Amino acid sequence: MKPFEQITIIGVGLLGGSAALASLERGAARRVVGFGRRRENLEEAKRLGAIDDFSLDLEAAVKGSDLVIVCTPVGSFASLADRLAPILEPGCLVTDVGSTKAAPVREFEEALPDGVHFVGAHPIAGGEKSGIQAARNNLYDGARCVITPSQKTDPEAMRRVVEYWECLGMRVESMEPEEHDYIFGAVSHLPHVAVYALVNAIAQMKTKTDGTVLSYTGAGLKDCARIAGSDPTMWRDIFLVNKKWILKSMDQFQAALDEIRAGIEKEDSVALDQSIRLANKHYSQMAKDDRRN
Amino acid sequence: MKPFEQITIIGVGLLGGSAALASLERGAARRVVGFGRRRENLEEAKRLGAIDDFSLDLEAAVKGSDLVIVCTPVGSFASLADRLAPILEPGCLVTDVGSTKAAPVREFEEALPDGVHFVGAHPIAGGEKSGIQAARNNLYDGARCVITPSQKTDPEAMRRVVEYWECLGMRVESMEPEEHDYIFGAVSHLPHVAVYALVNAIAQMKTKTDGTVLSYTGAGLKDCARIAGSDPTMWRDIFLVNKKWILKSMDQFQAALDEIRAGIEKEDSVALDQSIRLANKHYSQMAKDDRRN
Repeated sequence: MKPFEQITIIGVGLLGGSAALASLERGAARRVVGFGRRRENLEEAKRLGAIDDFSLDLEAAVKGSDLVIVCTPVGSFASLADRLAPILEPGCLVTDVGSTKAAPVREFEEALPDGVHFVGAHPIAGGEKSGIQAARNNLYDGARCVITPSQKTDPEAMRRVVEYWECLGMRVESMEPEEHDYIFGAVSHLPHVAVYALVNAIAQMKTKTDGTVLSYTGAGLKDCARIAGSDPTMWRDIFLVNKKWILKSMDQFQAALDEIRAGIEKEDSVALDQSIRLANKHYSQMAKDDRRN
Repeated sequence: MKPFEQITIIGVGLLGGSAALASLERGAARRVVGFGRRRENLEEAKRLGAIDDFSLDLEAAVKGSDLVIVCTPVGSFASLADRLAPILEPGCLVTDVGSTKAAPVREFEEALPDGVHFVGAHPIAGGEKSGIQAARNNLYDGARCVITPSQKTDPEAMRRVVEYWECLGMRVESMEPEEHDYIFGAVSHLPHVAVYALVNAIAQMKTKTDGTVLSYTGAGLKDCARIAGSDPTMWRDIFLVNKKWILKSMDQFQAALDEIRAGIEKEDSVALDQSIRLANKHYSQMAKDDRRN
C-alpha cells in the first residue's frame, strides 16, 4: 500500500500502541504521532519505538496527519469528534478501534466536515492485558477486523482504511454498524457482563474460616475470569454505549439461565441433560471453527 | 507408601484411567483392575497400560481388591454403594473422585458394612476432555485433593487414603462434606451453569444472513466456553446432586447480574465502574494466587 504520510494515534495503550508499532514496521506510515493525557505514557510509547513523537495538545498532534486512529474508550468518542472536527486537515481519514460501532459512526459522521472521512473499524484483538507495556507489533496479525460503513461512507476512504488494516495483517470484513453491535453485544459484551457478575458473586461467598471461596478456584473459572482482567473504563463505556443490544442479549441469557434453574429445582434430569448436551454441541462446533480459522 | 495389593477402578474414563496409570507408575498399587459397562472402553484402557485386567462383572472386578476407587458420575453412587456393600472384602477401602461430597459420603456410609471404610475425595483435576483416550499419568500431579471425612470416618482408613492421593502427587486438604459442596457449588458448579446458559443463549441468536453469531466468537468467550466441553452426564449428575448449594450460588449470581443490569438500564456509570473494578480486582487476586500455587 501507499503509506500514510503521518498517522496520529489517539490513546496510546494496548490497541493504539500495537497499531503504531505495526504501522511503522509494515510501512503503513512514514511517521506516527501519539496523543494522550499522560506524558509518562507517551514518553514510554516513544521509548518503545511505537511513536516517533507525541503531543499533549490535540491540534498539534493531528497537524499534518492524513490518518487519525481513535483508540480511546468509546465513551469519549462524541467529545473527541467535536474537538477533532475543526482541526483535521482536508482529506484526512479517521478510523477507530472501538468495540461498538453504531454510536461512533453516528457521532463522527455528524461532527466531521466535508472532505474529512470517518470509516468505523473494530479490530478483534486485545485481551486481558492493557496499556502500552502490553503493546506488540503482531497484535492484529491474522485477526479479524470488522469495518462498518454507513450509507454516507466515502468509497475511496473505505478502500484506504481497509487497505490499512489489511496491511497490519488483518482479515477485513464489513457489516452495518447496528448488525455489528447486535453480534458483538452477544458474543463479546454479554460474556463480560456474565463473568463480572460471576466473579463478584463468588467473591462474596466466605468459607467457614471466613476466607474467600475464590481461593478454591479451578481451571474452569480461571479461564472464564480472564476477561474480568480487561480494562475497566473501556468496558464501562461499552456497557453504556451498547445498552440496547447488551440488554437484548441479557434477556436471552436470563431465559437460558432460568431454564437450567427450573431443571435443577424440579430435578428434571431429561431437561438438564438436553441443556447441557446442547451447550456441549455448540462448544464442539466452536472448537472445530477455531481449528479452521 | 505401602502399595495396595489390588486397586479396582470403577469407571475407567479420564479420571479413573489417570488414577490407574499413576497408581501403577508410582507404585501405589501392585495391580489395577477396571470395571465398566463398555467392553471396548476397558479393552482400550488395558491396551493403554492403565489397567492390568478388567471385568464387566462387578463382583469379579472387586475380588481381592483392598482399594476401590469410584470414578463414575455422582448420580450412580447410591446404587453402586448398595451393589458394592455385600461383595467387598473385609478391610477394603473405598474412595472416589466425585465433584460433590455430602451425598456420596452419606450414601456409602449408610450402605457399607462394618470393616469396609469409605473416605470421600475430590481431586481437583479433569478438564473439558473426557474418556480413557484423554487419561494421563500426571493428571493429578501437583493438583489439590479435598478429602471430606465425616464423624464416622475411620482414622486409619483416612490415613491410607490421604497417603494414596499424595502418592499420586496431590496436595491433600480436608473439610466437611457440606462445606465442600458449598464451596465447589460456588467456584465450580455455578460457572458451569453460567457458561452452559451463556453458550445456549448466544447460539440462538442469528445474523442477518441467518448464520449463527457464534462464528464471531473471540478469545474471551472461547476461554469461557471451554467448560461447556466437559462430560455432560457428569455435570447433569452434579447439578442434581448438589441442588441445594448450586441454587444458593445462583441466587448470589442473579443478584450480581441484576446489579449490572440495573447499572446499564439507568446508565449509571459510577455503579458500573464499581462493579467492573471490583471484578477486575478479584481477577488480579486470582491471577496472583495462581502464580503462588
